[in-house]
Amino acid sequence: MIDCGIIGATGYAGAELLRLLSSHPEVGGLSLSSVSFEGDAMERVYPNFLASLKRPGVSGRLVNQDAVVEASDIVFSCLPHGLAEKAAAECLAAGKVFIDISADFRFGDDEETFKAWYGKSWTNKAVHAASVYGLPELNRALIAKAKVIGNPGCYPTSAALGLLPALKLGLAQTDRIIIDAASGVTGAGREPSKTTHYPECADGYTPYKIGEHRHTPEIIRTLSGIAGTEVNAIFTPHLAPMNRGIVSTIYFGLAKPATLAELHEAYLHFYSGEPFVRVLPEGMVSSNRYVKFSNYCDISLHMAHDGKTAIIVSSIDNMVKGAAGQAVQNMNIALGFNETSGLTMIPPAF
Amino acid sequence: MIDCGIIGATGYAGAELLRLLSSHPEVGGLSLSSVSFEGDAMERVYPNFLASLKRPGVSGRLVNQDAVVEASDIVFSCLPHGLAEKAAAECLAAGKVFIDISADFRFGDDEETFKAWYGKSWTNKAVHAASVYGLPELNRALIAKAKVIGNPGCYPTSAALGLLPALKLGLAQTDRIIIDAASGVTGAGREPSKTTHYPECADGYTPYKIGEHRHTPEIIRTLSGIAGTEVNAIFTPHLAPMNRGIVSTIYFGLAKPATLAELHEAYLHFYSGEPFVRVLPEGMVSSNRYVKFSNYCDISLHMAHDGKTAIIVSSIDNMVKGAAGQAVQNMNIALGFNETSGLTMIPPAF
Amino acid sequence: MIDCGIIGATGYAGAELLRLLSSHPEVGGLSLSSVSFEGDAMERVYPNFLASLKRPGVSGRLVNQDAVVEASDIVFSCLPHGLAEKAAAECLAAGKVFIDISADFRFGDDEETFKAWYGKSWTNKAVHAASVYGLPELNRALIAKAKVIGNPGCYPTSAALGLLPALKLGLAQTDRIIIDAASGVTGAGREPSKTTHYPECADGYTPYKIGEHRHTPEIIRTLSGIAGTEVNAIFTPHLAPMNRGIVSTIYFGLAKPATLAELHEAYLHFYSGEPFVRVLPEGMVSSNRYVKFSNYCDISLHMAHDGKTAIIVSSIDNMVKGAAGQAVQNMNIALGFNETSGLTMIPPAF
Amino acid sequence: MIDCGIIGATGYAGAELLRLLSSHPEVGGLSLSSVSFEGDAMERVYPNFLASLKRPGVSGRLVNQDAVVEASDIVFSCLPHGLAEKAAAECLAAGKVFIDISADFRFGDDEETFKAWYGKSWTNKAVHAASVYGLPELNRALIAKAKVIGNPGCYPTSAALGLLPALKLGLAQTDRIIIDAASGVTGAGREPSKTTHYPECADGYTPYKIGEHRHTPEIIRTLSGIAGTEVNAIFTPHLAPMNRGIVSTIYFGLAKPATLAELHEAYLHFYSGEPFVRVLPEGMVSSNRYVKFSNYCDISLHMAHDGKTAIIVSSIDNMVKGAAGQAVQNMNIALGFNETSGLTMIPPAF
Repeated sequence: MIDCGIIGATGYAGAELLRLLSSHPEVGGLSLSSVSFEGDAMERVYPNFLASLKRPGVSGRLVNQDAVVEASDIVFSCLPHGLAEKAAAECLAAGKVFIDISADFRFGDDEETFKAWYGKSWTNKAVHAASVYGLPELNRALIAKAKVIGNPGCYPTSAALGLLPALKLGLAQTDRIIIDAASGVTGAGREPSKTTHYPECADGYTPYKIGEHRHTPEIIRTLSGIAGTEVNAIFTPHLAPMNRGIVSTIYFGLAKPATLAELHEAYLHFYSGEPFVRVLPEGMVSSNRYVKFSNYCDISLHMAHDGKTAIIVSSIDNMVKGAAGQAVQNMNIALGFNETSGLTMIPPAF
Repeated sequence: MIDCGIIGATGYAGAELLRLLSSHPEVGGLSLSSVSFEGDAMERVYPNFLASLKRPGVSGRLVNQDAVVEASDIVFSCLPHGLAEKAAAECLAAGKVFIDISADFRFGDDEETFKAWYGKSWTNKAVHAASVYGLPELNRALIAKAKVIGNPGCYPTSAALGLLPALKLGLAQTDRIIIDAASGVTGAGREPSKTTHYPECADGYTPYKIGEHRHTPEIIRTLSGIAGTEVNAIFTPHLAPMNRGIVSTIYFGLAKPATLAELHEAYLHFYSGEPFVRVLPEGMVSSNRYVKFSNYCDISLHMAHDGKTAIIVSSIDNMVKGAAGQAVQNMNIALGFNETSGLTMIPPAF
Repeated sequence: MIDCGIIGATGYAGAELLRLLSSHPEVGGLSLSSVSFEGDAMERVYPNFLASLKRPGVSGRLVNQDAVVEASDIVFSCLPHGLAEKAAAECLAAGKVFIDISADFRFGDDEETFKAWYGKSWTNKAVHAASVYGLPELNRALIAKAKVIGNPGCYPTSAALGLLPALKLGLAQTDRIIIDAASGVTGAGREPSKTTHYPECADGYTPYKIGEHRHTPEIIRTLSGIAGTEVNAIFTPHLAPMNRGIVSTIYFGLAKPATLAELHEAYLHFYSGEPFVRVLPEGMVSSNRYVKFSNYCDISLHMAHDGKTAIIVSSIDNMVKGAAGQAVQNMNIALGFNETSGLTMIPPAF
Repeated sequence: MIDCGIIGATGYAGAELLRLLSSHPEVGGLSLSSVSFEGDAMERVYPNFLASLKRPGVSGRLVNQDAVVEASDIVFSCLPHGLAEKAAAECLAAGKVFIDISADFRFGDDEETFKAWYGKSWTNKAVHAASVYGLPELNRALIAKAKVIGNPGCYPTSAALGLLPALKLGLAQTDRIIIDAASGVTGAGREPSKTTHYPECADGYTPYKIGEHRHTPEIIRTLSGIAGTEVNAIFTPHLAPMNRGIVSTIYFGLAKPATLAELHEAYLHFYSGEPFVRVLPEGMVSSNRYVKFSNYCDISLHMAHDGKTAIIVSSIDNMVKGAAGQAVQNMNIALGFNETSGLTMIPPAF
């Protein structure tokens, strides 16, 4: 049994992590920090937790960051971008595993890109140099040895898993890959704003940050790394009136002629050992509906009528495989647990 | 480890039961029947189950009812009203536990009421006479010895738990208790209809079957049994544009003067040993939001400005405490398992 | 043709008023004020108005309050509670009609009640003394002569219209009338907050301010005025996951025995001349779905199974009959226009 | 004043047409037919129309198709695909204008394509030869002289208006134009089905009929006609959890280098005389939210980070500009009315 800590526990990713870790068979103590709610009980901030956090080592009390780092064998950070470096360095020094949900460790040692898109510089470059991009289907071996793990963004997870076999196997043209994606509103986090005000997003479907969303460089970096060449990926996010889920509809030109059956077979084979990627049977279509509350990524494959353009639909729950669930998966790998521990929940039918 | 069977597995209650039983620590084999989909795989009917039903004793294949009864130590029936008698009798004869999700065994030996509201007669009255109404907070001791259990309706569960302490303790006037309740659309089941067609219920809030909903006699029977006198409960259901949840706002006149604090204390004390009833702290308001996907019933207490009318809000997930979860709770009691086995899921924050 | 002004035009009520007045056949000029957006164009705040505010006398430019009062023959105020007195006094002095959407003029000369519930005192009591409560079905003759009109609240409109015939005709017991009401989220206005954050209210149905909502004294005052005796009305609002609409389910004991048909006939007769109240045929149930975007109030009548408790369902669009539409109706009456001018829109089917 | 008829009035397009025509200043009589509901009153099928269809020449009674054709100067047909030919021929013979909402007259004289995608042959080829594709922004002059008008599909309207200037002006590469579109559920019509059952589509975003949707040939035909060369358009529809609206996110390679400002200027200029196309100011993003209930098509222009791929967002209300509103616009043109008559409604802010 290990003791886990969550820094910034009162954001949506923190609350979801707490829910998952609470039923993880290898987790003992759980400590939580919050700047805004320090001293309060988590169940007052999120009433769903009422009566559910009662067990040895779990008080549900929100303390400060230092107390969490001190008390934990592994630390999950759910702070806003740019604030994870200090705790990461402390964990690294103490030999603890640190998993960051923000973008701070998604760019390896490429400070320039981070700075260009997130507007912040790095102080402790060594921590970044030691970090691993936590997409298990791509970097499992590295994650197993990592101490600092940058948990991927939700859109990049969906896009990368949808394209990983095609790019690895050289099936896709790398110019003008279109990633048209829809996200539920929890992706915007817990802070109210005009765009997430119920009357302003219910019954509406709206693209946003076209050509300038911060997940763009992460997607391009990941896809280019997979392909071994610079990929021109064009990514457009949309806000959809739903709580959870990301559905990416991905278009690419075939690098060489292939039938849908061949494409399907290639994906099935590529992902045959992956516990959380489901390549759907031909004829079924991927949707966020069937992965909600689970760590699955569902992928369906289709061919455009022109016979030369593939269409891949890749769906995840943005809060699970796109955030907290993938973080737990990374923990499982890094600590040598069964990779599916604490992640065996079946998505509900409705 | 026991083997469980679900008859009528492809309805919503069946799909939810399958999800819950799949992660129940005491459950081994799982067999499923369906009239409409016999021979198909459950994961083709509900793609959320893809790759999730792989384990010894679980094939996910839909067979016929007899095969399910034969293979199981305990049988859950999710058939439409009026069809459970045969399997119940077979289980009773074979010493197996039978838990019925329909209304067939909610009226004990009172065939007249059942006939008046459901339009069907009984053939095997002995099975009905042997049955127990499966509301654990009311009938736990009886359930522990029962072989045929009638799982309560969703609205009646919410209403009965909201009123149980008040009626047992003589705090409420029994004339004109108003139960104004809203339900999510899953309560209508899986069969498409005009009233559940998305464009006809999205963005709308609509009462239905006012004064004539079939849960009325069940509510009155249960409340009257609790009070020891005939209760005049007026129940109005509404369809709300959401998937899961029932919220009952209940009004009754105080039988004797009491403060809100006294009422609160009485409820807290009454439910202090119940694992699934959460009496909320004063100042918090019960909502379906905080109980979704869990077996909790959340109750909040309020006083009208007139100081003589109590307002109780009682919320459940209609598919869990209102159906499949309560059925699992009944199984746990009837088979002597820990009552919370397989039901420890924490409701998600969003 | 008259010139209209809207003070506080960038709130939801203001935006809805602008939409209605823009197609009103008797309206010429339209001027708009906003504190937060002074100097901006309305179509930048609400892009739905793009290209739609182009006509003589309508610039869509947001100016200050004084300029609006100066330019207008009639002024609608959509300011927060407590801020309407100054403009009302100016209009009264200048012989202009002033219609206030806030609660400031809903209590006649009863400053004490206003102060108790809204926490503010009055400076200019004469303006209040001159004001009329703008519920046309109750006060049409007074409104026709009024210069200062307090537009009713949304919940009170729905409740009062549902009970007006019963109380006027002495059909209802006046103790413990239950008004259980659900509102769409636009009722909370345009300011984002945690309770109106999409992930916090989607898929949820939640009571709020139980026993303490500010519409309570307005409801009691109006109903008591109708009944000619103090009415004990218990009002519980709920937030429902939808944009528009209020549905009030109202319960009262019959003052004397009556059949549903008699009740129905009484309501039909009472409202036979009202252009905006539709008493539904027996067997139909009132819902916000059928009144959206219109000025209708739909009323359906039902009887509880006990035969002595009536159930009335009264539905309106909270932004139209519950705010902007009723304000236009009041304008029509006060200025001698056809009462339905600018309000003939048919609610959409979906 | 003219008399209008609606054949198949009880489908969603028919109900929307009735709503629009009821407030059209040039429309006198209105007659309605329905096969399923012949003899009933429209307001019993759609309670929103209660008390709203009372005027000379409008009974709201559903009669048969022949009676509608007989009574009308202009006939709108809202029948399922393949059934409009008879009434069209009758109107043509009688010199009446016929506007068809189905796909029957969207393919001119190209029976082969219609047959390939809709599986039906034509009997009366002359009617088809006489028909005009009713996209006013493309074919206004032809529509003005037409007697048989094929009203465009909803997706094709959105796609064509988003691409019309780019293709006409030679700004877009014509190979692999991606049209990724989301539609509200009213697009599926009034017939309940599993995919439109509330619990199956709420909170979900799901692509469907990928590579095989019937609007594909209509889109390709229209775009190719505009471009004067065969266009390879790849169209993927998605079902979004909302009632109204289509949002198409369109990607194409620039045929020659251009800045976003140049593209924007070209679109602004191209559409400067169009009453129903709003090219949004730079920086704003098109959404269905701002066009709902109106006949507007909102277009916003964007550039991908690669500087060589344009992204166009084109939004309409699928039931208005995508169906009933465009049909009224076509009527206005064909009968010489002001093109915006009956279509001046401003979209609501929420």
